[in-house]
Amino acid sequence: MKDFEIGMSASYSQTITDADIKSFAGISGDNNPVHMSDEFAENSRFNRRIAHGLLSASFFSALFGTKLPGPGCVYVNQSLTFLKPVYIGDTVTAKITIKAIDTQKRRLYFETQCSVKGATVISGEAEIYIPKPNSH
Amino acid sequence: MKDFEIGMSASYSQTITDADIKSFAGISGDNNPVHMSDEFAENSRFNRRIAHGLLSASFFSALFGTKLPGPGCVYVNQSLTFLKPVYIGDTVTAKITIKAIDTQKRRLYFETQCSVKGATVISGEAEIYIPKPNSH
Amino acid sequence: MKDFEIGMSASYSQTITDADIKSFAGISGDNNPVHMSDEFAENSRFNRRIAHGLLSASFFSALFGTKLPGPGCVYVNQSLTFLKPVYIGDTVTAKITIKAIDTQKRRLYFETQCSVKGATVISGEAEIYIPKPNSH
Amino acid sequence: MKDFEIGMSASYSQTITDADIKSFAGISGDNNPVHMSDEFAENSRFNRRIAHGLLSASFFSALFGTKLPGPGCVYVNQSLTFLKPVYIGDTVTAKITIKAIDTQKRRLYFETQCSVKGATVISGEAEIYIPKPNSH
Repeated sequence: MKDFEIGMSASYSQTITDADIKSFAGISGDNNPVHMSDEFAENSRFNRRIAHGLLSASFFSALFGTKLPGPGCVYVNQSLTFLKPVYIGDTVTAKITIKAIDTQKRRLYFETQCSVKGATVISGEAEIYIPKPNSH
Repeated sequence: MKDFEIGMSASYSQTITDADIKSFAGISGDNNPVHMSDEFAENSRFNRRIAHGLLSASFFSALFGTKLPGPGCVYVNQSLTFLKPVYIGDTVTAKITIKAIDTQKRRLYFETQCSVKGATVISGEAEIYIPKPNSH
Repeated sequence: MKDFEIGMSASYSQTITDADIKSFAGISGDNNPVHMSDEFAENSRFNRRIAHGLLSASFFSALFGTKLPGPGCVYVNQSLTFLKPVYIGDTVTAKITIKAIDTQKRRLYFETQCSVKGATVISGEAEIYIPKPNSH
Repeated sequence: MKDFEIGMSASYSQTITDADIKSFAGISGDNNPVHMSDEFAENSRFNRRIAHGLLSASFFSALFGTKLPGPGCVYVNQSLTFLKPVYIGDTVTAKITIKAIDTQKRRLYFETQCSVKGATVISGEAEIYIPKPNSH
């Protein structure tokens, strides 16, 4: 736990494409036409097809599992507020930042944020548990 | 909004397989070895490979987008607490239940739960906004 | 069976993209260059790459399995006539309509149609069997 | 057209796995629990999860588009009767056989069949049009 400090962060960027949306629809079963149909989306409040909110949120999972704190950590909690739509072609930058550390309980508390061109599209918080080494 | 009542629910079941986990890893980039490597997982606290928490959570997105309230709804908020691991071969049942309705703000508030063999593996809450018809 | 009436219908819309065509090619092994190669397609009678006919037809399967009559039904029969090509970017609307009901044999007979901008691209018929509840 | 004779055939075999079923569900949106949930399937008439009928039928599309008659052909018509379920682990052999040729109309008429361990699981017929070379 001593390797972690408040303010440490990690980030990841991905341009959201139709292929991402189709894959997420396949995994989740969410084929809401606002994600799948240009014609439906044009007549919706969004005007164009939008990505699934949890698709962008999945980048938080990747950052925790591979970067900070990395392999072996346990995802305890995630809250998500979807502030703005993400459109096909948008480059989403996911960023996780340590905002508190509980050494006793071996927990890291994160701010989690996705942004597009500097504007926050998803905000939220996460709690991560780090098992003791060899504590199978 | 008058079509909705407190207590209405929808559910979906899927057996989580290696193919699901590999697909989710592909979309999210979360290739934490606890999801990907039998050898790593055997030496972890979980003993076997586990599914990504957001994979099970994605079924909530599907239920909102396709069943209740269905196409056109807007995902505002989701909180998730990951209570137990989901293993390959587990059949996850996702269930969403209306717990409050705000007719003025056109919001539905849901309890969201994933369970495996009757035990809750993910709990949480969600807020869904229903745009007025033709309110593009 | 008493929940069904002649004329009941369900529909689904999806914009066909390159990602859909590549996925279908992967599953089926149908990598006919008229689906995969811009250069080949430009020199074909279609001028541009077209989608696999069975890709659009697969939306009938989804409508039967998830909407009408929904989970648990058994697909007995499907005929398909491919009337016009579907191009990348076309929004396909699949529609299934009950045209006959055999209560004795527990069968629903459907008209099945895919259209693009109002023009029928696939026509056909389907027969669906509904097992008795608990008739494992 | 003179390259074709009645009785010519082509075939393709694939072992159907969970990954195939999950991919087909993703493409089609057909997440009927008889395909997706072990628990649901165990309580259904099939006892185990079954593959989507159109997944096996997609091998006909591949055979036409890549083998007989091959690239450039046009799929006009396909009828399908789903005789028996295909289970995970079954090896499906799809076979297409020319049963009639119309040289004037440049049409090939096929018998199309999928079998598992010698038993027919899907039967049907198909009509294929072969454009004249350079008849863009």
